[in-house]
Amino acid sequence: MGRVASSGSEMPGGVNSRECSQKRRSKLFKPPHQEGNLSKGKCRAMTSTKTNPGNFFEDFKFGQVITHATPRTVTVGDAALYTSLYGTRFAVQSSDAFAKAIGYPRSPLDDLLTFHVVFGKTTPDISLNAIANLGYASCRFMKPAYPGDTLSATSEVIGLKENSNRETGTVYVRSTGRNQDGEVVLEYVRWVMVRKRDTASPAPTPTVPKPAERVDPAALGAAVPRLERTGYNLALAGSPHLWGDYAAGEKIDHVDAMTLEEAEHQIATRLYQNTAKVHFNQHTEAKGRFGKRIVYGGVVISLARALSYNGLNNAFHLAAINGGRHVSPCFAGDTIYAWSEILEKAELPGRADIGALRVRLVAVKNQDCAAFPLKKDDGNYADGVLLDLDAWVLLPR
Amino acid sequence: MGRVASSGSEMPGGVNSRECSQKRRSKLFKPPHQEGNLSKGKCRAMTSTKTNPGNFFEDFKFGQVITHATPRTVTVGDAALYTSLYGTRFAVQSSDAFAKAIGYPRSPLDDLLTFHVVFGKTTPDISLNAIANLGYASCRFMKPAYPGDTLSATSEVIGLKENSNRETGTVYVRSTGRNQDGEVVLEYVRWVMVRKRDTASPAPTPTVPKPAERVDPAALGAAVPRLERTGYNLALAGSPHLWGDYAAGEKIDHVDAMTLEEAEHQIATRLYQNTAKVHFNQHTEAKGRFGKRIVYGGVVISLARALSYNGLNNAFHLAAINGGRHVSPCFAGDTIYAWSEILEKAELPGRADIGALRVRLVAVKNQDCAAFPLKKDDGNYADGVLLDLDAWVLLPR
Amino acid sequence: MGRVASSGSEMPGGVNSRECSQKRRSKLFKPPHQEGNLSKGKCRAMTSTKTNPGNFFEDFKFGQVITHATPRTVTVGDAALYTSLYGTRFAVQSSDAFAKAIGYPRSPLDDLLTFHVVFGKTTPDISLNAIANLGYASCRFMKPAYPGDTLSATSEVIGLKENSNRETGTVYVRSTGRNQDGEVVLEYVRWVMVRKRDTASPAPTPTVPKPAERVDPAALGAAVPRLERTGYNLALAGSPHLWGDYAAGEKIDHVDAMTLEEAEHQIATRLYQNTAKVHFNQHTEAKGRFGKRIVYGGVVISLARALSYNGLNNAFHLAAINGGRHVSPCFAGDTIYAWSEILEKAELPGRADIGALRVRLVAVKNQDCAAFPLKKDDGNYADGVLLDLDAWVLLPR
Repeated sequence: MGRVASSGSEMPGGVNSRECSQKRRSKLFKPPHQEGNLSKGKCRAMTSTKTNPGNFFEDFKFGQVITHATPRTVTVGDAALYTSLYGTRFAVQSSDAFAKAIGYPRSPLDDLLTFHVVFGKTTPDISLNAIANLGYASCRFMKPAYPGDTLSATSEVIGLKENSNRETGTVYVRSTGRNQDGEVVLEYVRWVMVRKRDTASPAPTPTVPKPAERVDPAALGAAVPRLERTGYNLALAGSPHLWGDYAAGEKIDHVDAMTLEEAEHQIATRLYQNTAKVHFNQHTEAKGRFGKRIVYGGVVISLARALSYNGLNNAFHLAAINGGRHVSPCFAGDTIYAWSEILEKAELPGRADIGALRVRLVAVKNQDCAAFPLKKDDGNYADGVLLDLDAWVLLPR
Repeated sequence: MGRVASSGSEMPGGVNSRECSQKRRSKLFKPPHQEGNLSKGKCRAMTSTKTNPGNFFEDFKFGQVITHATPRTVTVGDAALYTSLYGTRFAVQSSDAFAKAIGYPRSPLDDLLTFHVVFGKTTPDISLNAIANLGYASCRFMKPAYPGDTLSATSEVIGLKENSNRETGTVYVRSTGRNQDGEVVLEYVRWVMVRKRDTASPAPTPTVPKPAERVDPAALGAAVPRLERTGYNLALAGSPHLWGDYAAGEKIDHVDAMTLEEAEHQIATRLYQNTAKVHFNQHTEAKGRFGKRIVYGGVVISLARALSYNGLNNAFHLAAINGGRHVSPCFAGDTIYAWSEILEKAELPGRADIGALRVRLVAVKNQDCAAFPLKKDDGNYADGVLLDLDAWVLLPR
Repeated sequence: MGRVASSGSEMPGGVNSRECSQKRRSKLFKPPHQEGNLSKGKCRAMTSTKTNPGNFFEDFKFGQVITHATPRTVTVGDAALYTSLYGTRFAVQSSDAFAKAIGYPRSPLDDLLTFHVVFGKTTPDISLNAIANLGYASCRFMKPAYPGDTLSATSEVIGLKENSNRETGTVYVRSTGRNQDGEVVLEYVRWVMVRKRDTASPAPTPTVPKPAERVDPAALGAAVPRLERTGYNLALAGSPHLWGDYAAGEKIDHVDAMTLEEAEHQIATRLYQNTAKVHFNQHTEAKGRFGKRIVYGGVVISLARALSYNGLNNAFHLAAINGGRHVSPCFAGDTIYAWSEILEKAELPGRADIGALRVRLVAVKNQDCAAFPLKKDDGNYADGVLLDLDAWVLLPR
């Protein structure tokens, strides 16, 4: 567990006597080394503090590296579930034969499956006490992950800034996903607003990293083998449109849509071992702000990416996420549509086989995307816009 | 992509300028070579026509072979999902040990999983603009498919007939599923009613194939190895009733039933990468004929087949589908029951190990099958009948 | 099939003529050898009796061993589904790399997945005509099961007692799950109240086994390799709390919760090929006692076990279930919480690497477990309590 500022030796027993203290709830949110050394078994009933309270703002230290729990072997079983939950149809991730024909040893996992698994590991340590997910950036997919690979995650605290209300602060982390050989498959920067445990805690020296506006195209492509271009069958891939066929400014209505069910987003989010309570607990969410469970934002990203196949059929690899905003919450019963705009085209140094498109991928609920809904005249997002994602995708040239 | 009458060179950019043309919607449905050669980047906003509009009646040419997109490696993950979605219990498909004991190298995939995956590939090209699925016939399973096999699909246009209203026509295709070695695992004939793009288009010479009323029993059995009969354990298979124990005219109430949820049929249909919109988009279906999503007919077939285990426990292989009719639509919330009638018994030439039963498999909703509901006195199907399937199944002798 | 008191030769055809007999329904529940030898094909319509009527009380004979149908190869696909349905996060079952580092050849299957698959096989023979699942005990996990293993099940009748009303009786079975090599991976004792087919049937000599109150700790640990303790990474496992850190009497509120959907429990229960009708048939359950489908109790056990990770993160192996009670039924829409009490600590003979905790694992619906809800002052279970399970779990020392 990446419990900040704690180690096994500092959490000797984690047992409280309830008779001795009625303050379990508040104690739960104190770091273990403040709990004192209770003599075990003295009281009739004992209440444990061994559950994870998550980290509060003052638990995070600049430069600290958190090891997240529960490494995960991702298998063909996870890949099948991923297909069944989103209906993705990119040939490289769907067919071992297709992947081999262009130079992969076999079908790689969908990039977003890798992302969600790594992201899920970070939630118990980074965002359990988060009030808001403020943003993410500089997400790069650096090596393909294959069925059978074991993914694990760490996060480094790269920024801290207390808010003026002294009740919350912003934590910036760079999270890294590695395979069983320690190779980096993925990294991204994320910032969240986290509650303080104690408003009286001193503020850290403010450090605010400035993530690049976009990932440098020269840094893309590491996860793609040099393509055996003759093996890339356009009929099997589903479209003749290659990198050269797209133009900056082009907008694509992905046409298809998908209505989301509670069981579907819960199954997906559990698959990633993401533990954020708002996705799973109708008993508490019924009394919450929306009265219902909130769909994990990653489910919306995956649906939008899967829908984008229709129009971006050859954009077989998500190479980087430059930034993203979950504009409004998504709920079960919503029907998700998506559209894309090509923001930029880039060649990759030394790679004549593939090119990069910078794409704005927008997900919208309960309205089609023929009119490419995005923002209102006042500059605010239009009703129904769920997601505004800025990403690099790679296509054969 | 199997886009008829088009190739990469005929779809150079697929980019339209919105400023230049407000007719995106109608343009979308014109073949790419009619789009003209727009100078790219000239207008501020460009609307892409790279999404798949599907084929219209006049796009199909007699004798043409369409290669469908997205080959699919089917794995133990898909097999597990198949079990979880239908609860099928045939021992051969459930147990590697059982399959090996009778001569398979391992458990083959459920025949209907193979069928659905192949069928799913054909939908974007064949039935995206279909008004009605009129029928299918001559479906033969010709080789077992195993986890790890990559399935791909092609369709040959074997018949065309414009309807007298000149607005629609019937397209007959023979679809073929192949494995990664190019071996045919499955073929079937299907005919659909498809809209014309332009009612003024000239009618093709009418050609109407006549599918056989039933697959010749002599053509069955290719997908089953010669059984090591002593390895076929009846206790593990779940019943002592072998081929010889069934009689033509016998009716079997399969007793069990299954209520279907939206998440279940959507997960199933996406697993097959079937893209038919009516299964997934509640936003549009709410305004449609039924006010709700329609369950993919293949889900009903699979449920009925899985229920048929109880009474046909040793009918371990679906060898052929002679024909089938989806009598009425199925919706989430419906409870599916099934019954069978043995229509015919057949020996297979040179195969003393297995025999064939021709079975009428009927699925019914929201009523049990003790009375074997099928047709009313007027010859029309009784209320609640969903499926009337005519198939050959194989059993040990 | 484990049809009691029958074999293939005693069930020659199983075909009834409907014209000849209108008593199909009652006949269905007579053992096949009482059906007489009908001349086949004589009547126009024939109704089969080949479906499984299940066993009635008088079908069970003391000492008899029933072989259950449909062995099952459990794969990484099933493991992925298990994770997606419950969100379990124990590192040993999640990561091949973690499992290898401590001495396993790879990640074993979740113990409860093994249990549910074996249990599912027994339902058609043991509990199809059960009125009540009275209890289970002496459940031991004796060998790890791995993806690729084929599980099969047998049950021995170890007790019989007719009830004084002469309409029902209690059947005690010891069920055993074996892998493809015939090795026992699991055994448990279960007793169910089963209807008699005919109240006039003579009562068997009463035999009532007395299952041990708890599994002897000396019998635990067989399924765990000798741990390479240095390979057990506490940060990756998610908690520094080892066996020595827990105390008898300690109570743990597992804090997290999960709302259950119809699709989820149905997908889970079908994955186990469990055929109990009450979980699947809304058409009949709508008219039943609760008006809705009842969730398979094993789903509640698995959810509670998965939730228990938060506080018992290192309890990586469920070694035994001493007993369990499904206190009240669970339905879709319920939100499941869980808490645990450490009942007892035990060292294992010759095992300095691991220790056992006897845990009372309680699942509760629609209320949190901060107050550890269990029983009312009158000794009856408090409202909302779903499950009261008594189990041994193993942790590293």
